[in-house]
Amino acid sequence: MTHYDIDTIASWDRFHRANFINSLSGFKPVSLIATIGPDGVSNLGVFSNIVHLGADPALVGFVNRPREAAPHTIRNIEAGRYYTINHIHPDFLDRAHQTSAKYPDGVSEFAAVGLGEEWKAGFPAPFVEGSPVQYGLELAEVMPIPLNGTFFVIGRILHVFVDERIVGADGLIDLYEAGSMVSLGLDAYGTAMPHARFGYAKPDRAAVRV
Amino acid sequence: MTHYDIDTIASWDRFHRANFINSLSGFKPVSLIATIGPDGVSNLGVFSNIVHLGADPALVGFVNRPREAAPHTIRNIEAGRYYTINHIHPDFLDRAHQTSAKYPDGVSEFAAVGLGEEWKAGFPAPFVEGSPVQYGLELAEVMPIPLNGTFFVIGRILHVFVDERIVGADGLIDLYEAGSMVSLGLDAYGTAMPHARFGYAKPDRAAVRV
Repeated sequence: MTHYDIDTIASWDRFHRANFINSLSGFKPVSLIATIGPDGVSNLGVFSNIVHLGADPALVGFVNRPREAAPHTIRNIEAGRYYTINHIHPDFLDRAHQTSAKYPDGVSEFAAVGLGEEWKAGFPAPFVEGSPVQYGLELAEVMPIPLNGTFFVIGRILHVFVDERIVGADGLIDLYEAGSMVSLGLDAYGTAMPHARFGYAKPDRAAVRV
Repeated sequence: MTHYDIDTIASWDRFHRANFINSLSGFKPVSLIATIGPDGVSNLGVFSNIVHLGADPALVGFVNRPREAAPHTIRNIEAGRYYTINHIHPDFLDRAHQTSAKYPDGVSEFAAVGLGEEWKAGFPAPFVEGSPVQYGLELAEVMPIPLNGTFFVIGRILHVFVDERIVGADGLIDLYEAGSMVSLGLDAYGTAMPHARFGYAKPDRAAVRV
């Protein structure tokens, strides 16, 4: 094992450091977040810093970079309060990644990259056509993180769209079957393969695979 | 696509709802977080809600469940301020999952499940022996989330241990080669396979695979 201390890491050029630190936290649940602005222009961005917060109430958080670097998603959510999160499937990965390009104000990434808006359930934000797992949220809280100017945006889940054939009898969604992707660092993407599942862990016995 | 609204989801039994909502946010970067308490007893827990916050300063956050459900990790971090995050490899997955059992106060999960403590770099918290990617952090901030009683715990990365042969020329850590696992829901684990990597996205051209 090689030891890298923070002084060494801080001495690297910006891209080398970003690649290293962005891959350190592990594979990430990459998804597309869709919003619509007060001007009626939809917006679509690729986000990997998404985190499950709790099942009851059903809350999911994501990290929005500083406003100057990533202004549209957070602005639209603060104004409109509703947004959608959509898993990425290999079939449209190139278009999903392309939403990370800096398009000018007034341009919808949906149209620019060629992904379809799907409007449904009377929900006031678009879902991404073709995404195998889609959920719609209402803003619950924006927590500023003064340490680095980012924002932890927390939403309540209101609607979920997924093929019922991949929802198990116990409620688990088979994301392997869905084809949901993971990301690594800033620009790498992978798929996942099942390895093991366990019963509820108890102190008086070893782990039990089920 | 089947539509599940939040009223339907809320009507399910607790475990069905937990499995469903826990799998909704995608595959998760599961890791072991290690601490040591003021009483000298080490603690090890499996955490999947880990999120990259920024590369400069190098910050990583994780969600700690409410204190009554998961008291030890957050208590030890608040008291001692240093902790480690360690990726999980298939070779010790069963022992890693077993740390989720509720061991009584005074019992170290390291000893209980049979994982070794690795003390190094003069760092005041143990790393997990055999973990392919290990990093040591200093507490930066604990942000309570009143919405559900959880805590967003943010740390500054101080030390990283990883085999230099899996760090690319551009800084990206090859987590496929490391064997870093992902989790799905509460009790399922997978491995990841590389799919694609892209060049920096620009508005005036389509996505470029590299």
